[in-house]
Amino acid sequence: MYKLYSMRRSGNCYKVRLALAQLGIPHEQIEVDILRGESRTPEFLAMNPSGHVPLLEVAPGKYLPESNAILWYLAEGTPLLSNDPIERASALQWMFFEQHALEPNLGAAWFWMVLIKGGRDLQQHALEDWMEEGYRSLGVMEKHLSRQNFLADGRYSIADIALYAYTHIAHECDFDLARFPAVRDWLARVAAQPHHIAMDWHPAAVAAE
Amino acid sequence: MYKLYSMRRSGNCYKVRLALAQLGIPHEQIEVDILRGESRTPEFLAMNPSGHVPLLEVAPGKYLPESNAILWYLAEGTPLLSNDPIERASALQWMFFEQHALEPNLGAAWFWMVLIKGGRDLQQHALEDWMEEGYRSLGVMEKHLSRQNFLADGRYSIADIALYAYTHIAHECDFDLARFPAVRDWLARVAAQPHHIAMDWHPAAVAAE
Repeated sequence: MYKLYSMRRSGNCYKVRLALAQLGIPHEQIEVDILRGESRTPEFLAMNPSGHVPLLEVAPGKYLPESNAILWYLAEGTPLLSNDPIERASALQWMFFEQHALEPNLGAAWFWMVLIKGGRDLQQHALEDWMEEGYRSLGVMEKHLSRQNFLADGRYSIADIALYAYTHIAHECDFDLARFPAVRDWLARVAAQPHHIAMDWHPAAVAAE
Repeated sequence: MYKLYSMRRSGNCYKVRLALAQLGIPHEQIEVDILRGESRTPEFLAMNPSGHVPLLEVAPGKYLPESNAILWYLAEGTPLLSNDPIERASALQWMFFEQHALEPNLGAAWFWMVLIKGGRDLQQHALEDWMEEGYRSLGVMEKHLSRQNFLADGRYSIADIALYAYTHIAHECDFDLARFPAVRDWLARVAAQPHHIAMDWHPAAVAAE
């Protein structure tokens, strides 16, 4: 059975949990609290030198990091990933877009504003950059999604899972999605897919723990 | 024949040109000077709403952006991409790492320090972040490459092409690779692959144009 090292309060980890749920793949989840340094221990770094979650044990002692690489690995040969070369390339295109244009902005803003709640290391100039670049990325998605229902050539795929993770919580860190009606409609379509699961975390719930 | 929209002075574009050369795929190259706004024209934005190069026309009127998605598309079924699911996942893992941990730091530093040469928009705090994060990413690569010859499970692949692009010019923007002997050996191994081509650009050559 797969072992997934994951943090409940992470959009990147949520992607993998969502795909596992929708594909009905049995797995064991091990919670790793990166805020408590649990991904920086010698044991964890031996499994993943970059010290990030999610991390999937794909074979005994063989660990796969990078949320989107894990999605691809799990989805190959399933309805969540097309067999058509151009549709596959489109899915990958949006997943790379997510990692350099969406996650570093929406994800970073969410991490600092919602998870860490500011703190002395959050610098105003960084936040301004994330908002500006994040809005730019949402604009690219809006344009695309005003022409088609899902990101990669018209049907639900791991590309939608990858971009949904941080987009569906963007309002929590002050992104105003009112200007992006096509993105909002897409979020609703993704949430309505069979076997969808929620991210299963919001600040109030954790604060109460 | 494929049409590649590309800028000679771009590491992301170089990846695609290198793969096309090593795979012996005929193509037409169209130079797009992003510094002169040529990727922000209505015509270009109609092909790629995110306004980036490289961009590959994969079928008439069907455009694929994102350097690493293009690499995957071109390499499928060739010796540059394994058929083994875990090796494929490893390649993808490093290509996602490249897009969120290497290119935004080494690539950004190179863009501002070598291509733009400073300018009023370059902020010192950004440069410091890029250097710090860039060194951290090089450290992750060093650890990995001290145990194996190539990034994805021991043989040359598109993962090596993807990470070579900005790593092999990192010294031009003041990254000191002396501390990364395994990375330096790997750079030499990549450059020694059959049908390797150089990035075919350095600042002096362009300044003389």
